[in-house]
Amino acid sequence: MTTVAIQGEAGSFSHAAALALFGPALELLPCASFAELFQAVETGTAARGLVPIENSLAGSVHENYDLLNAHPLHVVGETFLRIRHCLIARPGTALDEIRRVASHPVALAQCRRFFVTHPDIEAVPAYDTAGSVRKLMEGNALADAAIASALAARLYGAAVIAADLEDHAENYTRFLVVAGDPTDVRGATKTLLMVTLDNAPGALHRALGVFAARGLDLSKIESRPLPGRPWEYLFYLDVLATSRPTLAEALDELRGFAASLRVLGSFTPTPLAHPPADAAAPHNPPV
Amino acid sequence: MTTVAIQGEAGSFSHAAALALFGPALELLPCASFAELFQAVETGTAARGLVPIENSLAGSVHENYDLLNAHPLHVVGETFLRIRHCLIARPGTALDEIRRVASHPVALAQCRRFFVTHPDIEAVPAYDTAGSVRKLMEGNALADAAIASALAARLYGAAVIAADLEDHAENYTRFLVVAGDPTDVRGATKTLLMVTLDNAPGALHRALGVFAARGLDLSKIESRPLPGRPWEYLFYLDVLATSRPTLAEALDELRGFAASLRVLGSFTPTPLAHPPADAAAPHNPPV
Repeated sequence: MTTVAIQGEAGSFSHAAALALFGPALELLPCASFAELFQAVETGTAARGLVPIENSLAGSVHENYDLLNAHPLHVVGETFLRIRHCLIARPGTALDEIRRVASHPVALAQCRRFFVTHPDIEAVPAYDTAGSVRKLMEGNALADAAIASALAARLYGAAVIAADLEDHAENYTRFLVVAGDPTDVRGATKTLLMVTLDNAPGALHRALGVFAARGLDLSKIESRPLPGRPWEYLFYLDVLATSRPTLAEALDELRGFAASLRVLGSFTPTPLAHPPADAAAPHNPPV
Repeated sequence: MTTVAIQGEAGSFSHAAALALFGPALELLPCASFAELFQAVETGTAARGLVPIENSLAGSVHENYDLLNAHPLHVVGETFLRIRHCLIARPGTALDEIRRVASHPVALAQCRRFFVTHPDIEAVPAYDTAGSVRKLMEGNALADAAIASALAARLYGAAVIAADLEDHAENYTRFLVVAGDPTDVRGATKTLLMVTLDNAPGALHRALGVFAARGLDLSKIESRPLPGRPWEYLFYLDVLATSRPTLAEALDELRGFAASLRVLGSFTPTPLAHPPADAAAPHNPPV
């Protein structure tokens, strides 16, 4: 049984992604913070960590880019989850009885239309999506409903009153899988790199050129500040490369002039994950 | 008198940067949010807006990149401010009387060493740095000291108990000046661009190449998600170019294959701003 560390509680979107990747037999290790998650994998308390790195609406989770830099872990996998926000309440609750809805501020912000079309209902910021459902069912909540995943409703015995509350259907989160050791990279299609460059004109163009010259596409570039060196940056590059020899050639050339280069990992992304069927919400139209 | 919109209260670091750029005669328009700041400049309520875009330790302020995209404003200037956190209390307070220190969570996080070396003192998260000083002096604070700028201490009649509380001296914030109309760009040395590219291999390398081929350096590249188009990005490029004809050539070439290109503005950055002399804190060693 694989122990998988996530940030947040059981029933969170990270938990849904973990189930889709590792199956129902995983042992979940909920962590209070992302720093704690990385620590759990580094010390071996968890074999894997599931790290949200980017949301298609909100953008990169910069804290996790910084944690990838700070910890000697390997990225061994990747998946994507469609974020479907559900309105969740105690069984038997009707929509028109609901006055206060609790959830994480990011989830509340992604369901603005629901609150505009239901002016009688107040949004109540809370620490966690799934945790809001748990508190609701424990009876000590400050709200009478929550916004969270259908998985949270199932885990805590709550009812999905309405599904697909999100303003934009194109709401996906990309997760990386981190581990203490690399896995077999034969057949890998994607490689994550961390690069620093000398502060010389055209340095980034030259770095991207080692990939462009070999027909290797980049799917993402992210920059983060270098602490103590104002206005200098660390670049994270996602390289799509199926040929290991071609990738090795490109990295050799890059190593020749980069100030530093670290390969975070090579892997094959797992296609878009759907929550397990029994956790699926009814396909209600947006309310 | 120039009306300058800032996010936050009088005495904030944005206010200190505004004083350094526009002098003491400015009329300050404090805004509750960055969205409100952009709105104030767009409607003409303020002639200028001062927008923190990047901190040398925390990285980019992504919300403000998104607001630059959402509003038809022009970037007409830039400056940098050294962030110096002061421990501020009511006059007559001694360090060993202080038990609770309020400030914005980002400021508290940048002064971790102070709290480690003073285990009797509790950090209390608050809405604002300068606002914590104001509340302290109004007598309705939940803390007996605050962390904020020396300017805040001066404005609200409080005392600087200790200066330079920050863990890293290399703590600078970069501010952009936004306006409804562009200013004279003759002599400008820096140009900010927003670019989207077709999702083709090597597209970003090709885009950077139009500058590299002409010896024009980039000082920054930032990517943000394109809403509704998962895993596609909008790129913000900071181009250092003193020759307008060379820049125009590069932009013409880029326009030929970019999906979209918007010039946010050209300007000459103002050298590192220091808070006005009378607001300077004593040069205490870190406590």
